[in-house]
Amino acid sequence: MLNYDGSSLFISQKDIEVIHEYTLKTLSEVGMIFDHPEVLEVFKKHGARLDGNKVFMDEALISKAIATVPIEFEMYGRRGGLKIGKRYDPKVGPGTDWPLIVDEENNIRPPVFEDLLKFYKLMETSDIMDFSQLPITNLPEFGGKGDCTYLAQIALMLKYTSKFYANPARPNQSNVGSKGIRQTVKEYHQMLKEFHGVDDDKYIVMELLCVQSPLCNDKEMLDNLLEAAAANQPISVVIASMTNTTSPSTLLGTAIHDNAVALATTTLIQLLRPGLPVVHTILSSPSDMRYIQMGTGSTENALLAYAGIAMGRYYGIPVRGGGTLSDAVDVDYQTGAESAMTLMPAYLCNVDYITHCAGGMGVFNVGSFEKFVLDEELVGYMKRMIRGFNSSEPEFAFKQLKDTGPRGNYLMGRTPKQYRKETYLAKLFNKKGGMVSVRDDGTLREKACRHIQERMENYKLPEVDKAQQEVLDRYLKPLGL
Amino acid sequence: MLNYDGSSLFISQKDIEVIHEYTLKTLSEVGMIFDHPEVLEVFKKHGARLDGNKVFMDEALISKAIATVPIEFEMYGRRGGLKIGKRYDPKVGPGTDWPLIVDEENNIRPPVFEDLLKFYKLMETSDIMDFSQLPITNLPEFGGKGDCTYLAQIALMLKYTSKFYANPARPNQSNVGSKGIRQTVKEYHQMLKEFHGVDDDKYIVMELLCVQSPLCNDKEMLDNLLEAAAANQPISVVIASMTNTTSPSTLLGTAIHDNAVALATTTLIQLLRPGLPVVHTILSSPSDMRYIQMGTGSTENALLAYAGIAMGRYYGIPVRGGGTLSDAVDVDYQTGAESAMTLMPAYLCNVDYITHCAGGMGVFNVGSFEKFVLDEELVGYMKRMIRGFNSSEPEFAFKQLKDTGPRGNYLMGRTPKQYRKETYLAKLFNKKGGMVSVRDDGTLREKACRHIQERMENYKLPEVDKAQQEVLDRYLKPLGL
Repeated sequence: MLNYDGSSLFISQKDIEVIHEYTLKTLSEVGMIFDHPEVLEVFKKHGARLDGNKVFMDEALISKAIATVPIEFEMYGRRGGLKIGKRYDPKVGPGTDWPLIVDEENNIRPPVFEDLLKFYKLMETSDIMDFSQLPITNLPEFGGKGDCTYLAQIALMLKYTSKFYANPARPNQSNVGSKGIRQTVKEYHQMLKEFHGVDDDKYIVMELLCVQSPLCNDKEMLDNLLEAAAANQPISVVIASMTNTTSPSTLLGTAIHDNAVALATTTLIQLLRPGLPVVHTILSSPSDMRYIQMGTGSTENALLAYAGIAMGRYYGIPVRGGGTLSDAVDVDYQTGAESAMTLMPAYLCNVDYITHCAGGMGVFNVGSFEKFVLDEELVGYMKRMIRGFNSSEPEFAFKQLKDTGPRGNYLMGRTPKQYRKETYLAKLFNKKGGMVSVRDDGTLREKACRHIQERMENYKLPEVDKAQQEVLDRYLKPLGL
Repeated sequence: MLNYDGSSLFISQKDIEVIHEYTLKTLSEVGMIFDHPEVLEVFKKHGARLDGNKVFMDEALISKAIATVPIEFEMYGRRGGLKIGKRYDPKVGPGTDWPLIVDEENNIRPPVFEDLLKFYKLMETSDIMDFSQLPITNLPEFGGKGDCTYLAQIALMLKYTSKFYANPARPNQSNVGSKGIRQTVKEYHQMLKEFHGVDDDKYIVMELLCVQSPLCNDKEMLDNLLEAAAANQPISVVIASMTNTTSPSTLLGTAIHDNAVALATTTLIQLLRPGLPVVHTILSSPSDMRYIQMGTGSTENALLAYAGIAMGRYYGIPVRGGGTLSDAVDVDYQTGAESAMTLMPAYLCNVDYITHCAGGMGVFNVGSFEKFVLDEELVGYMKRMIRGFNSSEPEFAFKQLKDTGPRGNYLMGRTPKQYRKETYLAKLFNKKGGMVSVRDDGTLREKACRHIQERMENYKLPEVDKAQQEVLDRYLKPLGL
């Protein structure tokens, strides 16, 4: 494993102290909007100063609250337990919530129901992904079939995948119908608990809650947060600002802003439920002012990720980092280069958790089956990377050097287990050399498509017992699923 | 700039000591072949033990020799001076010596004369490349036109590019004719010196010399080395082994092997000419035993690069690192991901020099115009990365946070200079967002091709004075060039 945390390459102790100092200054002097009467009451009760829906909090309140965040916790699911936190081994989830996809014919189009199932099958058959999550929400197929379609979408994920669950695609006004957000979140937690046969004591879903910027949590987000806390489920507080647009112009200003909203939101969570697991995340990006667009696949995104990771570690809060982020809308050189650049911080820092690790591009907007499986290959490289360099067997090396000698040939005899243990063999990337004949295997896109087809054919529905089937039927049968 | 050297993430002090200890053991107990009587004489004179063409050297000899390697030096050329060494700012050169290229129609084929000129024009018009070097050698157009074609190829580079010169494509039996290697190298140095109007006192070409593995320097390489040292030109000693094939099975074994050959070769250089600049380089890769192929675009290549960089720093020798290495034969996701992964060590460690930074793929075998310009984009990102995170203006950030406030809009007013200074704007990558309409601009390949076309149109032959023109004419006119 790596010798230490790579964020220290980019973020000095002084940088950390500056970000921390101005975070406190921002929260006590500028304040943050929490657009929810219930939440304002909580802050008031704990002595925060209020001005309308704006909350001002001081260092004492924040320090006391965040001290109760646990440094590690364990997810529970059909595949047993998954420790997240100080293990220094990132747990991985795919991308999510794509309004567009790139299909088999390389067209960009809105997704259909079959695409949703195809992504679930990729998640389920993945050697790399620890988590499943909703890749696509609000399909036309779910519209018109019922009032609150959100619960059926969760049930469908439970039917098709048996991984650990994370939930970044939140219930919102468009998919909860007359049930409302809070009731929907309550029932979705009940469904998960009933399905897993557990009570509040187990963490069965990682809740990914996206804070608005600048300095704001709206009612919809806070409804989600209140219910996640009530259901005792871990929360990954994520902030995705755009420099010079929704956050200050500089990386420092954005890091201060992002750290402030993350810390304020974590404070609220701990006031609501001390000891509830929180994951600290900065997922912000530079704006490209030529087009007023977020530039996720960028060095500045990576630098902000390093800052977020450094701050989470400073507070003793588990950290999440990056993903395979790209701004391209084709799976090409840009996609590969940007995905590797933006995934690097998470692995160089051995973060605790990563999502957006497979399938996403086009500034979080476009899902791709092809990119999903190529991203898995890239994550495989990173997992090899953090196993690092092993100098524990110098005598084995020296014996080989001596036995083979100058101008000798190491190809003689059996391939030793040490080679097999150390060498990551790519599945889809060309490793056959730099010759014309390599193209006989088809393009990388064609190879990826063949691989996806094989996984579709080998996919099996996860087994469920009778009680679990009843839970699924309750939500899926009314929609004819 | 980065806080410190990223190799320490991967290579511990203990790892360094193990590699160093077994390097010395290898050089004193296993020995290394130097297949050249003149070189054997040099070692003998300095007290090394010989056994046929095998040289055994002890710690005292090595330590004394490498102590004279300078920690920095300055290249000289038509564009002034270029410091290489402890500046912590990598100087960059393109890829080299491709037997195949991918052309405008995306076909893989042997290169023709026009391809060579096109690569020179890309080098000359590059904002990124500090160096020019031979991208293609031994073209059919050079065959049959003369006896020794190597000198004309160098003259052609001088005619078409005015960057600093590096020379990884060595004279060999196939391009020196009856002139022989040593005489050709001697004359090529004379040509360079005459062209630049300098004597031995200036460093005008970085000589890239590739050591053979395992543990061997053959006569051809040593002829090159002897003449480079005689001409007082800096030498980048590079070793590109394949684990389990031409070097030991493990990364540690390969690091020991590579460090041994690099150190032994550096020792020879210093015995020949104490104080001559040397650049330490490990450019080795894992073998993929499924195909017995070198896997340049890999985590293991990156880990070996970190080891090489750490060892160079340990000895106080300037270091070279990685490049945009890939094993793909198409410019695709693999190419982008692998190029970013393998370029990362050089920038995370702020090495002194990098080559293979643009245009190469297919295990060093395939050149691509398209990849050349996309690699430049990637190097641009890395140059931004090492400028790092700047926390020096917290009051500017706080004023913005306060003035804009919660739910405010940072888009008001002029874009501040701080944003412009911090944000790298890509030229070719899509930054217009994740929408279908982005594809109206064409694919990345089409955008790259248009950009290349523009550079061809804007290219101007570098100016030469009358004396320089005479030098060029002497070598090019006989071939009708």
